[in-house]
Amino acid sequence: MSKQTRDKILDASLSMFNAQGEPNVTTNHIADEIGISPGNLYYHYRNKNDIVEQLFARYETQMDRALLVPEGRLPTLEDVWLQLHSVFDCMWAFRFLYRDLVDILSRNRKLKQRFSRIMNRASTSAAAMLKGLSKAEILRATDDEIRATSENVLLVATFWINYNTVRSAKTEQTQKELTHGIYQAMLLIAPFLRDAERMHLNALVLAYRR
Amino acid sequence: MSKQTRDKILDASLSMFNAQGEPNVTTNHIADEIGISPGNLYYHYRNKNDIVEQLFARYETQMDRALLVPEGRLPTLEDVWLQLHSVFDCMWAFRFLYRDLVDILSRNRKLKQRFSRIMNRASTSAAAMLKGLSKAEILRATDDEIRATSENVLLVATFWINYNTVRSAKTEQTQKELTHGIYQAMLLIAPFLRDAERMHLNALVLAYRR
Repeated sequence: MSKQTRDKILDASLSMFNAQGEPNVTTNHIADEIGISPGNLYYHYRNKNDIVEQLFARYETQMDRALLVPEGRLPTLEDVWLQLHSVFDCMWAFRFLYRDLVDILSRNRKLKQRFSRIMNRASTSAAAMLKGLSKAEILRATDDEIRATSENVLLVATFWINYNTVRSAKTEQTQKELTHGIYQAMLLIAPFLRDAERMHLNALVLAYRR
Repeated sequence: MSKQTRDKILDASLSMFNAQGEPNVTTNHIADEIGISPGNLYYHYRNKNDIVEQLFARYETQMDRALLVPEGRLPTLEDVWLQLHSVFDCMWAFRFLYRDLVDILSRNRKLKQRFSRIMNRASTSAAAMLKGLSKAEILRATDDEIRATSENVLLVATFWINYNTVRSAKTEQTQKELTHGIYQAMLLIAPFLRDAERMHLNALVLAYRR
């Protein structure tokens, strides 16, 4: 029973944070939402920060899995698509984190370090994928170009949600706009692809736009 | 005298917002800083939001100037560097805006629309520059590639400051890290350049890294 309440609080917090923005949700709102007393909530979590850290742990697990690179074989372009999809799915599931990223990390030193570790892993993973594609002769790029491109893929992915928010007049975002971000990240890699792959990719993007 | 105080309030607000983050500065802090009474401050500005809007007007003027495209001739690669420098200088001067961009725009509908207009102008300006470079045969890219690359340049520039903040362990940023952002944006264009220009650019970036 107690375990169930703990999870219920986390689930409710996640969907409320995602819908309203973490800074706008209090522990009282969360307790109200699932119909428990604030005292009961405080029995399970010290404060809102504690809840955010537990959600961050869930996020970390999912993101670490998304960042796995194929082992024992060279990656294909399909692998890159799949990885970007997994990464963007994880970002969407925990979008409250990305919406107020700078603010949340500036309030919590521990989370800043843990997020920094994930960014380092993502950077290593992106570079490994691109180097693999280069080895498989699917793309051609110097080490410097691979480093710079990995960094740009990271930046585009990390801030895609915020970019969409400030770019469009709408306040709500849909998961479809997230898919657009995957294409936008792929297009960072496109110019380095061999002609056949580049044409194939451009055709896919065109088909998506229609 | 009154005009002087008005400007003094804006100048102090800008540097306090930049140093501490706009959400962390109140009108009382600002009045304290320049040694006037809160009442005197309210004589000049209705509230903090009013100050933010006035600073935004200054920002708009500077950014609009930075986004000008050479007229009556085709652009060169030098023009792209210069434009990126002007744009990043403006971003640095008003970095409080970029630090809490999503938050500030979500609190103020008018600013959201005005920022959206600037983003549209920046997107048009970037695409015009790239099309000009393509016409001058300095780079080779399809219309779709130009569109996607302009969008990525916009995203990298807009969120460069935040990216640096979440990426590094340090809390303070220097103007030098901003210069790195200019290179990072240039490298989005690099793969489309003719071989000679691409090698030249890569050499410049290498020199910068040392």
